[in-house]
Amino acid sequence: MIFVFTGNGKGKTTSAIGQGIRTAGQGKRVLMVQFIKSPKFKTGEETMIKNLAPRFSLIKGGKGFVGIMGDKLPFSVHKKAAKATLEKAKAAIFSKKYDLVILDEINVAVSLKLLKEKDVLAFLKKVPTNKDMILTGRSAPKSFIEIADLATEFKEVKHPFQKGVWGKIGREF
Amino acid sequence: MIFVFTGNGKGKTTSAIGQGIRTAGQGKRVLMVQFIKSPKFKTGEETMIKNLAPRFSLIKGGKGFVGIMGDKLPFSVHKKAAKATLEKAKAAIFSKKYDLVILDEINVAVSLKLLKEKDVLAFLKKVPTNKDMILTGRSAPKSFIEIADLATEFKEVKHPFQKGVWGKIGREF
Repeated sequence: MIFVFTGNGKGKTTSAIGQGIRTAGQGKRVLMVQFIKSPKFKTGEETMIKNLAPRFSLIKGGKGFVGIMGDKLPFSVHKKAAKATLEKAKAAIFSKKYDLVILDEINVAVSLKLLKEKDVLAFLKKVPTNKDMILTGRSAPKSFIEIADLATEFKEVKHPFQKGVWGKIGREF
Repeated sequence: MIFVFTGNGKGKTTSAIGQGIRTAGQGKRVLMVQFIKSPKFKTGEETMIKNLAPRFSLIKGGKGFVGIMGDKLPFSVHKKAAKATLEKAKAAIFSKKYDLVILDEINVAVSLKLLKEKDVLAFLKKVPTNKDMILTGRSAPKSFIEIADLATEFKEVKHPFQKGVWGKIGREF
C-alpha cells in the first residue's frame, strides 16, 4: 500500500515515524530514507531510531535545505544526492529486508525538481503489493495521490511561526 | 506549548508518537496517556515504546471502543476510566518527570461526553509554559484550538476503507 502525507501543516514526518514505530512493533522491518535532511543536521528522531535497529533504520540521503537557509551547494549536488537516495529506496523495497519504506520529503524533492515526477511515479507503480511505502512532504503531485491507497492532507490551522516563535529543540527537529 | 492534532484523516496518533520519539531523542521525557485504547488491545507502538522507557512511557487508560464494535461496558465505566486518565495526565504535567505529555484521543473522549470540555479546558489553561502537550483525536472542540499554540487538521483525501479494505496489522494499530 502507498500512503501520501502532504499539506502545509505540521506532523507529516513525525506521523511517518510513528507509523514506522507501529509497524516495527508488529515485528516488521522499517527503513526511512530522507531526501532533504543531511547527516550534518542532527535530529531527535535519529538518536531514538538508532536504538531501534535493525527493526527501524534510517538513511539521511539529503544535503540539507535547497537554495534557502544559507545553502551554497550547487543544485547539481542536491540533485545527485536525491537520485542516489531514490536508488537506495528502490533497492530496499525490492529486497526482502524491509516491509515499510518511508520516503521522507520526497514530495518536496519532486517539487524542487531534484527528482522527476515521472521517474518516481514509474517506481511507485512497481511497489510490491505486500510492501508499504509512505511518501511525505508538502505539495505532493496529483499523480502520487492518484496512485496512493491512502492520502492525508495535513492542514495548518494554527502555527506558532505565525506568531513569530521559532521551533524549539525537540519540537521541529 | 499546546498542540492539537484533529480531523478525520489518518496519522494523528502516529504523529504524536513520532513527536514523542523526536522529543525523547533530544534527552527529554515523554508520557503518552491514552483515553480510548485499553490494555487489552495490543498495538505495535506499545511494544516499541516499552523498549524506550524511561524516556518514553505509555499509560493505556481507556476501556476500548465506546458503544461500538461490540462494546458492552456501561457508559459510567468508560467515564470513570477517562476521568482517572485525565488525573494521571495532570499529575504528569505538573511533576518534574515529563517534558511532553500526549493526551491521545482526548478530543474523542470529550466528543463522546466521557469528559467535560470545560474540565479539560481548565486544565489546559494551567499547563506550565515550559511543558508541551499534544491533544489528538477527531472533532477537537473549538476552545481547544483557540487555546492551542499549534493545530493541524488531518484531512482524509483518500482512505482504503472507502474501498472496503480493512486495516492490516502494523497499519492501523
